[in-house]
Amino acid sequence: MKDFNNRTPDWVKNAVFYQIFPDRFAWSSRVNKPGLFEKWDSLPTVHGYKGGDLMGVYEKLDYLEDLGINAIYFNPIFQSASNHRYHAHDYYAVDPLLGGNQAFQTLLKEAHQRGIRIVLDGVFNHASRGFFPFHHILESGPDSPYLNWFHIHDFPLNAYQGKPNYECWWNLPALPKFNTENPIVRRYIMDIARYWIEQGIDGWRLDVPFEIRTPGFWEEFREVVKTANPETYIVGEVPTEAQEWLNSGDKFDAVMNYQLTHAAVGFFGGDSFDRELAKGMMGLEEPRTLSAEAFARRTSDLLQIYPKEFAYAQLNLLDSHDMPRFLSLMKGDADRLKLAYIFLLTYPGAPCVYYGDEVGLDGGKDPLCRKSFPWREEEWNLRLRDAIKEAVTIRHAIPALRTGSYEPIYAREGVLAFLRRDELDSVLVVLNNTNAPQKLSLPTGSVYEEGAELQDQLSDSHFLVQQQQIPDLTIPAMSAMILV
Amino acid sequence: MKDFNNRTPDWVKNAVFYQIFPDRFAWSSRVNKPGLFEKWDSLPTVHGYKGGDLMGVYEKLDYLEDLGINAIYFNPIFQSASNHRYHAHDYYAVDPLLGGNQAFQTLLKEAHQRGIRIVLDGVFNHASRGFFPFHHILESGPDSPYLNWFHIHDFPLNAYQGKPNYECWWNLPALPKFNTENPIVRRYIMDIARYWIEQGIDGWRLDVPFEIRTPGFWEEFREVVKTANPETYIVGEVPTEAQEWLNSGDKFDAVMNYQLTHAAVGFFGGDSFDRELAKGMMGLEEPRTLSAEAFARRTSDLLQIYPKEFAYAQLNLLDSHDMPRFLSLMKGDADRLKLAYIFLLTYPGAPCVYYGDEVGLDGGKDPLCRKSFPWREEEWNLRLRDAIKEAVTIRHAIPALRTGSYEPIYAREGVLAFLRRDELDSVLVVLNNTNAPQKLSLPTGSVYEEGAELQDQLSDSHFLVQQQQIPDLTIPAMSAMILV
Repeated sequence: MKDFNNRTPDWVKNAVFYQIFPDRFAWSSRVNKPGLFEKWDSLPTVHGYKGGDLMGVYEKLDYLEDLGINAIYFNPIFQSASNHRYHAHDYYAVDPLLGGNQAFQTLLKEAHQRGIRIVLDGVFNHASRGFFPFHHILESGPDSPYLNWFHIHDFPLNAYQGKPNYECWWNLPALPKFNTENPIVRRYIMDIARYWIEQGIDGWRLDVPFEIRTPGFWEEFREVVKTANPETYIVGEVPTEAQEWLNSGDKFDAVMNYQLTHAAVGFFGGDSFDRELAKGMMGLEEPRTLSAEAFARRTSDLLQIYPKEFAYAQLNLLDSHDMPRFLSLMKGDADRLKLAYIFLLTYPGAPCVYYGDEVGLDGGKDPLCRKSFPWREEEWNLRLRDAIKEAVTIRHAIPALRTGSYEPIYAREGVLAFLRRDELDSVLVVLNNTNAPQKLSLPTGSVYEEGAELQDQLSDSHFLVQQQQIPDLTIPAMSAMILV
Repeated sequence: MKDFNNRTPDWVKNAVFYQIFPDRFAWSSRVNKPGLFEKWDSLPTVHGYKGGDLMGVYEKLDYLEDLGINAIYFNPIFQSASNHRYHAHDYYAVDPLLGGNQAFQTLLKEAHQRGIRIVLDGVFNHASRGFFPFHHILESGPDSPYLNWFHIHDFPLNAYQGKPNYECWWNLPALPKFNTENPIVRRYIMDIARYWIEQGIDGWRLDVPFEIRTPGFWEEFREVVKTANPETYIVGEVPTEAQEWLNSGDKFDAVMNYQLTHAAVGFFGGDSFDRELAKGMMGLEEPRTLSAEAFARRTSDLLQIYPKEFAYAQLNLLDSHDMPRFLSLMKGDADRLKLAYIFLLTYPGAPCVYYGDEVGLDGGKDPLCRKSFPWREEEWNLRLRDAIKEAVTIRHAIPALRTGSYEPIYAREGVLAFLRRDELDSVLVVLNNTNAPQKLSLPTGSVYEEGAELQDQLSDSHFLVQQQQIPDLTIPAMSAMILV
């Protein structure tokens, strides 16, 4: 057995991620611009570009570091003729609009010096019409030596008119599907994967990896990247439960935990989340309102369905570029977003902040969930940002919040309390997900000694443990306590 | 005045070029092949690939060195979805089918070690549908920041159907014309030009440069590349007389001398060249049969219409990828081809052998003039090859043949004789372009002393100068003498 199987990188379990949609995070004048862009503050359009770039990210590393971020997941950065860059034109070139390979190396080096890891988005199921081997067939027809790189049914290719006559993702002609059965194509993809690891990246987020069913493909992928660097993180975009992809220990380290997202919408949204907006989210069934009890059960289950090593490496997120912002799902209620982030930051797995969430950036379905980051501080929700930053700081300070157990001990009437324990600490997290203060006696079992004093990390409050409980604990509406 | 203006590189005047169409010269197993190619020996097709590559050229450097070649002009080698590669997809990448940038550097280094220079084909008037900035507009529409890189009239672009609604070369939708009025585009092109000079190439052959009329463009181009390396050769594809491009001394060093080609067809073809095949050649008027007198006049004139410095740097060729092979124009008469090459190799300017001409490769109009090189020696016309090789050797041996004067002294009934003189030598070249031996008395004026003995470099014959002439000189049918 490969010694990198059945293991996941420890740094992930200790990471707080930040997801960046490169065209929309930050704009730098250090990158040569080839022409005009949409106004930064204008609403996103389907095909428009705002001109964010990687030197912009480089210039905002102080901001990210201040927030406590130590890992970035980038939406695709390779050369692509789409603003989201899921249509790769060249897998070896960082988009010139983003500053090219040079900007990326500058960013990567500085990020690493600050202890910030970088995970890239790998889109290996499909390429684009501009990807050289596909374009080669488009131009040369059946005479192209790249013919078997795709699944071509007929000539001439209906790439820009008519019904696609080649296999493409979701039947979108812009996204021709690779023929991963062709060993040359397989090798080509593996070489890309290895190349960027050797260039220094810390992981691959894999786009729609479940679409590639070629036997042994993902096992080989793991072998290739883990051989290049055993600390590489491999996280698949699998919105469903992903036992198939994780439990054999030889494919991915994690998935994007949209199952947790789904549960979070149902719990933190209560009976007032935006059902219209939540419809069709990631192709999952419509979220239902979850009671504290149901949420406690689901969040426990999600740690059981995968081996612990993998469960603790999941990429936990409230939202992303592929779904409405959590804030908008909460109909703009920033307290619910705050509470959900505090949960995420006290739950096992790597929490991931979708850029701008922390300052109250909202937005519905694509393209609205991809607004430009508002860099004018007067537009920020500073209370929200401070709360998230505080929770990040606390997570970094207390190992039990990262790698300790997860033990719900109380779930009733919108209040959830759970323990996070390791050999050093026992942390008690209490969330009041209702619009009223809640008074309760919290049973702590034998975890704490009689008379132990617990200090809330989020306030001045402290509590005494009496007879295996915290009696008369009052927790304000829509708030949390992290008791140590 | 720039000190690189009004000057041309001396190495060019001393060079013997070989033109290589990369897909068709030589195939190496050292280059990873992405799929299947047409059979090497099969006839060329419009869109087909034979799979020639640069490691193939690398492996044939012995062959070229043996032939006496000391410069190569390559048809385009940058990534392109066409077998001729005039549709650039990426100006910074050597086509992966050719072995990529690595193969090119391997070849360049070894060529330089052998004293062989390399000139690349620069296609800056138009790009391709796969070129990233154009593809970007094709995919993103008016939202692309590359919008002003081309001349777009309307959306959506009719790139693959209907009538092109953007400017393109010869109205071919595959070849969108650059907007060289856009300073960003201009800078982009200048950067490419500089980049490859910095990578070590020795010159640029410029495709259809007369199509770019932006004021100052080519002057800037010269400044950029000559600043990077003053020894860079700039040769434009201008089939007409090119005073406009050469005589100001601040644009190109030379043009592809199709005017000389045109005259050579008319003289060496006599009244028996293939007029059908010659029709439309390079867009020039149909070649007419030229007498020796007319050819002498034209070849003299062609050295007068440009400043000498430039006249002696012209790229002289009998044929190319853009016209029928000279051998086919001569209806397969290899003696006429041989004689024409001996002329080219004894005339001022850099002679250029189109790959395969020397072994008797034939072929009509495109794509037939682009056959694969026949590497089985039993298919070669060895007599032809030996004759060309011998003439190359003699040219290298005698500086006067390269940089001496050109003085026709006899032109009558199919016989042309001219002197090539410098301070060291006086060489007398005699060509009998008829199908019968010719007997003549050759007037030499005061060039030689009475009783001087002239030795033919191509045979054992020698001749005495008597009373300012060579009396009773008999020259066999379709043959040449180089008398020293």
